[in-house]
Amino acid sequence: MAQDKKQVEQITDMEVDFAKWFTDVCKKAELIDYSSIKGMFILRPYGYAIWENFQKILDEKFKETGHENVYLPMLIPESLLQKEKDHVEGFAPECAWVTMGGSEKLEERYCIRPTSETLFCEHYANIIHSHRDLPKLYNQWCSVLRWEKTSRPFLRHREFLWQEGHTMHATAEEAIAETERMFNIYADFCENYLAMPVVKGRKTDKEKFSGAEATYTVECMMHDKKALQAGTSHYFGDGFARAFDITFAGKDNQPHHPFQTSWGVSTRLIGGVIMTHGDNNGLVLPPRIAPTQVIIIPVAQHKEGVIAANEAVMARLKAAGIRVKMDASDNSPGWKFAEYEMKGVPLRLELGPKDIEKNQCVLARRDSGEKVFVSLDNIEETVKTMLDAVQQGLFDKAKRNLDENTYACATLEEVEEKMASQGGFAKTMWCGELACELKMKEEAGVSSRCIPLEQEHLGDTCACCGKPAKHMVYWGVAY
Amino acid sequence: MAQDKKQVEQITDMEVDFAKWFTDVCKKAELIDYSSIKGMFILRPYGYAIWENFQKILDEKFKETGHENVYLPMLIPESLLQKEKDHVEGFAPECAWVTMGGSEKLEERYCIRPTSETLFCEHYANIIHSHRDLPKLYNQWCSVLRWEKTSRPFLRHREFLWQEGHTMHATAEEAIAETERMFNIYADFCENYLAMPVVKGRKTDKEKFSGAEATYTVECMMHDKKALQAGTSHYFGDGFARAFDITFAGKDNQPHHPFQTSWGVSTRLIGGVIMTHGDNNGLVLPPRIAPTQVIIIPVAQHKEGVIAANEAVMARLKAAGIRVKMDASDNSPGWKFAEYEMKGVPLRLELGPKDIEKNQCVLARRDSGEKVFVSLDNIEETVKTMLDAVQQGLFDKAKRNLDENTYACATLEEVEEKMASQGGFAKTMWCGELACELKMKEEAGVSSRCIPLEQEHLGDTCACCGKPAKHMVYWGVAY
Repeated sequence: MAQDKKQVEQITDMEVDFAKWFTDVCKKAELIDYSSIKGMFILRPYGYAIWENFQKILDEKFKETGHENVYLPMLIPESLLQKEKDHVEGFAPECAWVTMGGSEKLEERYCIRPTSETLFCEHYANIIHSHRDLPKLYNQWCSVLRWEKTSRPFLRHREFLWQEGHTMHATAEEAIAETERMFNIYADFCENYLAMPVVKGRKTDKEKFSGAEATYTVECMMHDKKALQAGTSHYFGDGFARAFDITFAGKDNQPHHPFQTSWGVSTRLIGGVIMTHGDNNGLVLPPRIAPTQVIIIPVAQHKEGVIAANEAVMARLKAAGIRVKMDASDNSPGWKFAEYEMKGVPLRLELGPKDIEKNQCVLARRDSGEKVFVSLDNIEETVKTMLDAVQQGLFDKAKRNLDENTYACATLEEVEEKMASQGGFAKTMWCGELACELKMKEEAGVSSRCIPLEQEHLGDTCACCGKPAKHMVYWGVAY
Repeated sequence: MAQDKKQVEQITDMEVDFAKWFTDVCKKAELIDYSSIKGMFILRPYGYAIWENFQKILDEKFKETGHENVYLPMLIPESLLQKEKDHVEGFAPECAWVTMGGSEKLEERYCIRPTSETLFCEHYANIIHSHRDLPKLYNQWCSVLRWEKTSRPFLRHREFLWQEGHTMHATAEEAIAETERMFNIYADFCENYLAMPVVKGRKTDKEKFSGAEATYTVECMMHDKKALQAGTSHYFGDGFARAFDITFAGKDNQPHHPFQTSWGVSTRLIGGVIMTHGDNNGLVLPPRIAPTQVIIIPVAQHKEGVIAANEAVMARLKAAGIRVKMDASDNSPGWKFAEYEMKGVPLRLELGPKDIEKNQCVLARRDSGEKVFVSLDNIEETVKTMLDAVQQGLFDKAKRNLDENTYACATLEEVEEKMASQGGFAKTMWCGELACELKMKEEAGVSSRCIPLEQEHLGDTCACCGKPAKHMVYWGVAY
C-alpha cells in the first residue's frame, strides 16, 4: 500500500479548540496554503474550485437580473480616494500604498483597491449623461487588499477574492429596490446553495459601510455560535454622486444626481461553509457547491471486472450531470475513506465484486455517516435524491443550531449572562442610541449584528437604558 | 426618433492613420475607457464580455488537459523576486512597489506581480516532496502590472488581465511536451476561434522570456502588416527549481529538481482581433467569440405583429444556442445599423411586415456587407451556416494578408527595401548570432519574430553576415 504520499493526520477536536480545528481543516483539506507575506494566502485547487462554483452560480444570477461585468484598475490615486470623506476615513488606515513605479518615485501615491466605489464613480462620471444612460448595473470579479493587522484563512485575508456590484439609478426608489434585490440574492444563495440559514436585516449606523446611507446584511451562525457577516448590500443615496459630480439630464431636461448601490460577497463565504457544516473528520460540503459530489471507491480493485464496473457507474453518473470522481490509486481503502471525508465529499460510492454480482453498491453519506446498499438500477436518480437529502439535512441541522441559540433578553445583564453561558444571538429591544450599543459591547462583549427585517415586539423599552425602544436588534460575537 | 442617446460618429480612416483608427474603435465600440492613471484602462461591459468568452473556451481546454486553477497573492517580496537572476533583471525595472501598509513603512518592499513564476516556485517548494506529487499543472486567471512608459488600449496596459499557467514535471521531456501542448492550444485558439492565422516558432535567445531556456510563440500579422505576439509558452529547465530549492524524491529515492513551464495569453488578444478583422465601419468579430452573434432589427416595428414575429425568431435562435439580441428601441434603423456594425456583430437580421407575409427575413453579413433574403423555415440552420461562413471568411481574408505579405529575402538590404515598400514578414536565413539580430534591428528596423517550427531552406548563408546559416527566421515590426 502506497500510503507514503500523504498520511491522513488527526485534526484538532473542534470542541476543544474551534479556531485550531478550523485552520487544521483549511490546511488538511488542501484548501489553502500560506505565502511568505503575512495574511496573504494561497487558494489551492480544491479551495479555488469551490470559489469557481460560487462564481458560476452567482454570476448567472447577476446576469439574469440584468448586470454586466466590467474590470476597473486595481490602483486608486490618493486624491480620488479622498473625494468622499466618510469613505476615506473608513478605508485609508488599511490601504497598501504604491509609491514607486520602476525606479522612480511616483508624484502621487496609489492605493491598491480595498473596494472600488471611487473608481466606479470616476468612470460613471464619464459615461452617465442622460436618463437614457441609466440604470448602470455593473459587477466586477477581482481581488481587493486591506492591510489588516491580524489574519485567518478565509475570514480575514489581506488580499481576498470577491465580487463587487456597483449600480447607478435615476431614482432613490429604484436604487433601494436594487439594494434589496441583491441582498435577497445573497440570502437565497446562502440558504439554498450553502445550506446556511440567515438572519436578514439592516446594520446600525455604527456598523454601516463607510459612506453608505444603509447597509443590508445577511448574518449566519457558525457551529461555535459566533456570527459571520456573509454578505452586504449598500444604499448610498446620491452622496458619492455629489462628491464625484455625476449628473444626468432627466426627462425634465434638468440636471440630477443618480442614486447608487454596491454589494459584495467574498471567499469569506468558504470560511462560513467550513464553520457551519464541518466536523471532527474535516470538511463537509453542501452538494450544490461541492467540486466533487460523489467519490467512487472500487473495492478489491485488483479483481477482474471491478475497475470496469466502477468506470461504468462513473460514466452513468457523469452523463446525468453529477460531479463524480473515482479513486483507483494504490492507496488503502482506509486512507481513501479518510481523505475524502477530510475533503467533505457529500457521497461515497463503494462497489466491489460481491456488489457487482448483486447489481448493487454502497452509498455512504458524509454528513450523517449513514451507509446503505442500493440497486444499480436507476443509480442516477438514487444518487440525486440522496444528494438532495444531504443538502437539506445540512440546512436543517444548521437551522436548529441557529434557532436553539437565539433568544430574547429583556436586560443587558441577561444578555451578559446568556452570552457567557450559551453564546449565540441575543435579541433585545433597543433605543437606537450609539451609547447603548457601545455599552452592550463593553459589558456583554457583543456587537449589533443587525436590525432584522422581521421585527418582533419583545417589549417597549431599550434593554440597556430603559428608554422607549425603536427596534429589535440581534447581538452576538462576530468573526 | 430618439437619436440623442448617442450619435454614431465617424472614426478615423484606417488607411490614413491606423493607430488612431484603432483607438477610435476601442472607444466607439465601447470596449474600453480611460482611467485617471496613465496606462490603466477600464474594460467596459462589451470588452469584458469578449474576454469572458476567451476565458470560457480556454479554461475548458486547460481543464480538459488536466490543469487546475489556483489563486496566489498579488504581491511579491523583493527578496523573493531576486532569487532568479535573469528573471529579476527582466522584470524589476517595470515593477510597481508597495512600500507602505496603512500608515507604516514596510520593512521590505513588495512588488505587484508582473508575472508569478517566483510565487509559484515558493509554493511548489512547500508542496512538492515526492515523484507522486508530480506533475503539478496549475493555472491562474488574474491581472498583472508592468510599469511601462508608453501605453495603448489592449496592446500595452500597465495592468492587464491574463492567464498564467505554471507547471512542474519529473522530467525535462515531459516539461517540453507540456510547453508544446499549451503552445498548440494557443495556436488552435487563435486560428479556430479568433480567425487569426499564426506563425508558430521559437523565440531567439534575445527575445526569450527572462529566465526561460526556450520560449515558443504564436505570431500573427495585423491588417497594417505589423506583427503581434499573441501567446507564449516557456520551458525553464530546472533553473528556477534550483534557485528556489525545489526537490522531490524520485522513484530511485534520490533527490531531484523538477522541470518547469509557464504559458500565458492576455487581453492583448482582443487588440489582435480588432487589428486583424476591423474595418472603417468599426469592429468585426469572429462569430465564435462574439458576445452577440446575431442582432435582430425589427422593421416598421410600430406595425401590428412585427415585434411579436421578431421575438419569435429570437426565441428560436436562442433555443438553438445562438447568442442573439433584439433592438426594439426607438432609435432609427440607420442609427441601429451603424451601432451594431461599430460593435462588429457578425450577422444582422431584419424582419418587417412584408417579410412576415412572405415567411422570410433579411440576413446581412458584417464582414462582406452581403445581404440575402432567406426563408424563416429552418432559420436556425441558415443562421448557423452563415455564422460559420463569416468565421471562415474572416480567417481566409487574414490568411491572404499573411501569405501575400510574407516573403523570402537573401540579404539585409533586401529586407530593408521590402520592409520600406511593403512591410509584413521577411524571412531570411540567419547564423544565430546576436550581432546580426541587432544589425537587422538597426538597419532594417525589424526584430526577429520567431524561428518557425516549419523551417524552409532559403539558402546556406546568413542574410546579414554571410556566414553559414543555422535557422530560417521571420522578421517584422512588432506591436
